[in-house]
Amino acid sequence: MQVFKKVAIIGVGEVGGSIGKDLKSKRLAEEVIGVVRRKKSLKEAKQAGAVDRAVLLDRLGDGVKDADLIILATPVGKIIGLGKRAAASAKKGAIITDVGSTKKVIVEKLERSLPEGIKFVGSHPMAGSEKKGALNAEKDLFKGHNCFVTKTKYTDRDALSKIKRFWRSLGADVVEVSPGEHDKIVAWVSHLVHIAASSLVISNKDLLKFTASGFRDTTRIALSTPGLWLDICQTNAKEITVSLDKFMKILKTFRKLISKKNTAQLSKMLNQSRDLRCSLE
Amino acid sequence: MQVFKKVAIIGVGEVGGSIGKDLKSKRLAEEVIGVVRRKKSLKEAKQAGAVDRAVLLDRLGDGVKDADLIILATPVGKIIGLGKRAAASAKKGAIITDVGSTKKVIVEKLERSLPEGIKFVGSHPMAGSEKKGALNAEKDLFKGHNCFVTKTKYTDRDALSKIKRFWRSLGADVVEVSPGEHDKIVAWVSHLVHIAASSLVISNKDLLKFTASGFRDTTRIALSTPGLWLDICQTNAKEITVSLDKFMKILKTFRKLISKKNTAQLSKMLNQSRDLRCSLE
Repeated sequence: MQVFKKVAIIGVGEVGGSIGKDLKSKRLAEEVIGVVRRKKSLKEAKQAGAVDRAVLLDRLGDGVKDADLIILATPVGKIIGLGKRAAASAKKGAIITDVGSTKKVIVEKLERSLPEGIKFVGSHPMAGSEKKGALNAEKDLFKGHNCFVTKTKYTDRDALSKIKRFWRSLGADVVEVSPGEHDKIVAWVSHLVHIAASSLVISNKDLLKFTASGFRDTTRIALSTPGLWLDICQTNAKEITVSLDKFMKILKTFRKLISKKNTAQLSKMLNQSRDLRCSLE
Repeated sequence: MQVFKKVAIIGVGEVGGSIGKDLKSKRLAEEVIGVVRRKKSLKEAKQAGAVDRAVLLDRLGDGVKDADLIILATPVGKIIGLGKRAAASAKKGAIITDVGSTKKVIVEKLERSLPEGIKFVGSHPMAGSEKKGALNAEKDLFKGHNCFVTKTKYTDRDALSKIKRFWRSLGADVVEVSPGEHDKIVAWVSHLVHIAASSLVISNKDLLKFTASGFRDTTRIALSTPGLWLDICQTNAKEITVSLDKFMKILKTFRKLISKKNTAQLSKMLNQSRDLRCSLE
């Protein structure tokens, strides 16, 4: 099901590249154009089979001008600026979306400020890893994964419906939320988890040589690009601090039960977390 | 290099089973006898290629009486009791070791209380997963992994040297420590990490359906048997609370920097944790 004929992807990294790869391999678009920051990425995007052609960022206007869909697949901190630049060169009727990990700030800044005839709908596919670059793009990266799509009272209903169909065509399970609900959810399921993993690594800085595979699994996400997380922390500060407070409260309960050797309650909590985690297997 | 001719393994689960599998497949022992709790495990231990023969726990005496090495590979809470029972049936000159995740309590209780001629040396190979049972035993599970071996002023030097050679014959990197040092190290690199993962799962109990692969990696260790962790928390309570306090201090620093949007310091911490974690790749 071809929802959009021409698609421009700004930022052909792991996520942007995986979108392009699916679009091309499944013939879900007639043309995929990549817009990249570095010369090296021009070649990599082609090599990964993610785009039909790629242009550098200084030719962004050329890259997006015929696109029916423009996808902003850069780190959060670049999305708003590039979204405005892309909209200025986009054709009438074009739809813009993004894949940023926070939504409130982005949707507020883009949804109502674009030129007449250009619509924005926020997205956030819950897929991808700590890896970087188009060469880490994967086919079917989104298949069976949740993809948040945001709806506000200003969201164009037709654009929203198309964006939802677009993500479904890549196999994603679309979850429609408000930007605020989105940011609340990901603060818990993603941002808190990242801060916890980073804190575990720092806690163990003098003992890393004694860590084993469990530690490596638990802290794998701490490998992701710090700049990306800096953007996320800045644009979702409030919700992240709320989740951190709750997390520390649970840690304190564990601490108390361990120190008081309260076996019954400790067993209850360990069993609860094990059962909950089992439900994800 | 055959360090011990006859080896009895009490508890033929993932770790005990993997020891047996290596001993047999590499001909590092003439005979491997398994001692198991459940009837089902008799068959599984054989099927996994982990033992030459297996007996049930009520025939423990039979299982261990000819062994040159007896390995206690049960959850921490069972090690001391079974160690004493095994020692009562062991032959003169036999050496007993364990694979328990805490060492201070175990070594204190076993090293000096065994019958004349039976020596105990504590071990803790840093390998294994959240999986259970001999059918999850793996060849070369210990290869390239650290294995702690404890030394106190009461440790028999000859037995210590043999136990170190034994683990090296399985490919492990032996780390000689005091039981206290061991418990301090694993509180940080393992026990703290487990409590953090369990707390993350509980924090997200109402949002599990929105979690993605990063969350699953980070919390995988919360799948391990709660009873095992209960034993660990009880026998290493002090060190775990110390590590939890330090961990919460780091989380609080993150919280403060995020809430105050202190980009420079936040960036520094995210980069520090990323660089540290990279060193493990």
